[in-house]
Amino acid sequence: MSITSRRAGNVPASPIRKLMPYATAAQKAGKKIYRINIGQPDIETPQTFWDAVHTYPSKVLAYGDARGLHDYTDELLKYYENAGIPLDADNIVVTTGGSESIVFAIMTVADPGDEVIVFEPFYPNYNGYSAMADVRLVPVATKPEDGYHLPPRDEIESKISPRTKAILICSPNNPTGTVLTREEVQTIADIAEKHGLFVISDEVYREFVYEGEHTSVMHIPSLSERAILLDSISKRFSACGARVGCLISKNKEVSDAVWRLAQARLCPPTLEQVGATAVLKNLDGNYFAEMKEEYRKRRDAGLEEIAKIEGSFCAKPNGAFYYMVTFPVDDIEEFAKWMLTDFDSGGETTMIAPGPGFYATPGRGFNEARLAYVLHEGDLRRAIQILGEGVREFSK
Amino acid sequence: MSITSRRAGNVPASPIRKLMPYATAAQKAGKKIYRINIGQPDIETPQTFWDAVHTYPSKVLAYGDARGLHDYTDELLKYYENAGIPLDADNIVVTTGGSESIVFAIMTVADPGDEVIVFEPFYPNYNGYSAMADVRLVPVATKPEDGYHLPPRDEIESKISPRTKAILICSPNNPTGTVLTREEVQTIADIAEKHGLFVISDEVYREFVYEGEHTSVMHIPSLSERAILLDSISKRFSACGARVGCLISKNKEVSDAVWRLAQARLCPPTLEQVGATAVLKNLDGNYFAEMKEEYRKRRDAGLEEIAKIEGSFCAKPNGAFYYMVTFPVDDIEEFAKWMLTDFDSGGETTMIAPGPGFYATPGRGFNEARLAYVLHEGDLRRAIQILGEGVREFSK
Repeated sequence: MSITSRRAGNVPASPIRKLMPYATAAQKAGKKIYRINIGQPDIETPQTFWDAVHTYPSKVLAYGDARGLHDYTDELLKYYENAGIPLDADNIVVTTGGSESIVFAIMTVADPGDEVIVFEPFYPNYNGYSAMADVRLVPVATKPEDGYHLPPRDEIESKISPRTKAILICSPNNPTGTVLTREEVQTIADIAEKHGLFVISDEVYREFVYEGEHTSVMHIPSLSERAILLDSISKRFSACGARVGCLISKNKEVSDAVWRLAQARLCPPTLEQVGATAVLKNLDGNYFAEMKEEYRKRRDAGLEEIAKIEGSFCAKPNGAFYYMVTFPVDDIEEFAKWMLTDFDSGGETTMIAPGPGFYATPGRGFNEARLAYVLHEGDLRRAIQILGEGVREFSK
Repeated sequence: MSITSRRAGNVPASPIRKLMPYATAAQKAGKKIYRINIGQPDIETPQTFWDAVHTYPSKVLAYGDARGLHDYTDELLKYYENAGIPLDADNIVVTTGGSESIVFAIMTVADPGDEVIVFEPFYPNYNGYSAMADVRLVPVATKPEDGYHLPPRDEIESKISPRTKAILICSPNNPTGTVLTREEVQTIADIAEKHGLFVISDEVYREFVYEGEHTSVMHIPSLSERAILLDSISKRFSACGARVGCLISKNKEVSDAVWRLAQARLCPPTLEQVGATAVLKNLDGNYFAEMKEEYRKRRDAGLEEIAKIEGSFCAKPNGAFYYMVTFPVDDIEEFAKWMLTDFDSGGETTMIAPGPGFYATPGRGFNEARLAYVLHEGDLRRAIQILGEGVREFSK
């Protein structure tokens, strides 16, 4: 019998990291690995971040405010104002990464045994966060052939039970890159209102939209009291190791609860907030446009290469820096492992994130994989060409 | 009816921060406040920390390993080896502050509705962490007149129920400064073994022991599989804002569960681990001895001043940098507030942490307060003298 808790047993190992031992072995054996399995961009963290950190004058690294450094919150207010989201300071709690904001949101709206609706495929760590909170994620399927857009409203509503507390959305989406239309976000809002649910909206990829506009959950007036916005600087400023995110709610009861949760863990990391403050304060007007242009080019280059892999399929995604690709293989996990252990193309191979880890429903995702276009164009093309060679060899 | 979760409702606002608005108002009105209410030391963070951060050469602030940076873990292994705690790297998970290590420990050993035994008075944030996990803290009383040492074994055992999963200890103790003797830790170990419980041991003040030796839960051989050690650099290196802690367990099932929890939140903050690594790597052999000597002096000076306050009582504590002091007042919360709103001595006043926040049992702590000797000797003496004046005035 297990001596640890049932809850701890429910926290899955990261499916993205499951292949790590094989990658380590391949690397030790001298193979070069193109890592398009995780969302770690190669873009440099803005110099303003480093300058602020390198010259931080304080002699004592003291506790900051539980809500976040005031200077940082002030900059966030301006950032969101520019994004069409006017806020008050007490709508914001700075969190230790987007990760903590999700945990706080789930704990605030749901008790053990309660349910949160999520669209699959979804970011695998949602499983870990909900297991910590002992909350059940109830998946609603989206399909490759629909570009992973939302299914009809009645399919979503059919999953609502008396224990449902919230609908969790992620747009632009990890892993699919899908950007929800304003109509889709409005549909979620209508469902939430009708059934008395919160909408938890993971918008960490908000600045990565290549066609059309991003619709924030905070852009829907009727959601004002039901919307919980989760955010992070990790991808936006290529500062994944900073662990600086935030949770936003205009609902007084929610923000009060989140503040109390925040007080218990004292404060988010101070130095990284100092860096993030400097970045926002000195943000070049072209920063996001240039970053978007770089990723858009990568996306298009990668899609060209994917199209050359016979039997593969990928609807063009409009955001984030991922695609879910359907491959002509029977068991993507076996394939992804084989790419590391048994295959190489001139001493090089490619590491991908197998699809099943992004699904809660058993049997789904077995021929899909998430590819992150976090490498510059040349490397990305090469990585996907190698994948194509691998697919052909594996299918023999 | 509340729209947020029952769980969120159980997370208390920090009792230590409850007085903040009054302090802010007093400060605005021109009063100087001696803050001995929180454990924010005035000692400088080691220069080696700042040097490492100021010269950190990386251009991309990337995700670190979920377990912590390898360099940092290597240094931790040496640090614990020197403390008589030989470990393997996979016994350690670096956490985002000691706070996260406590949450991980509780979630790993207990399910919603389970119980953890704790000795009161205790660190108030334990309430928040257990509420997040929906776990019940069951208090066992310790008394001022016993120097807050453990009660007889049968009193502890009488609180054990079928839902008890762990005993949580903190030595040197926050808020009492009490250092458990080896015999006391052994008693806890014996109880844990007899009843099949884990021992969660908060040792963030391990380097602050002024008389005698510190006994770690890891020093008790019979606890090898049941001990979970929680630690943090916050106080040790005066780096409270860094949010770098760790959780240590030699139990494979526990450390595997904690690792999975850690993977879900990706990694602890990178920069601060870089700083912490440099501190440990270059630790001056006299660093802890000098720090201890400084705090020992402060403790003794503070105790001299406390002894002058008629009707007060404080058993000399051997560790940490706090004392719980019994004052001749009926309602310490009212007194602490009054010190900020209505009292001053030459334009100065003192802020303390009222006792009730450190107790789970209603009605306890009403004449106690925690004083943190985190100011240098002159300021500390003055702060406590002002308290004495306040007590006399308040009691009139």
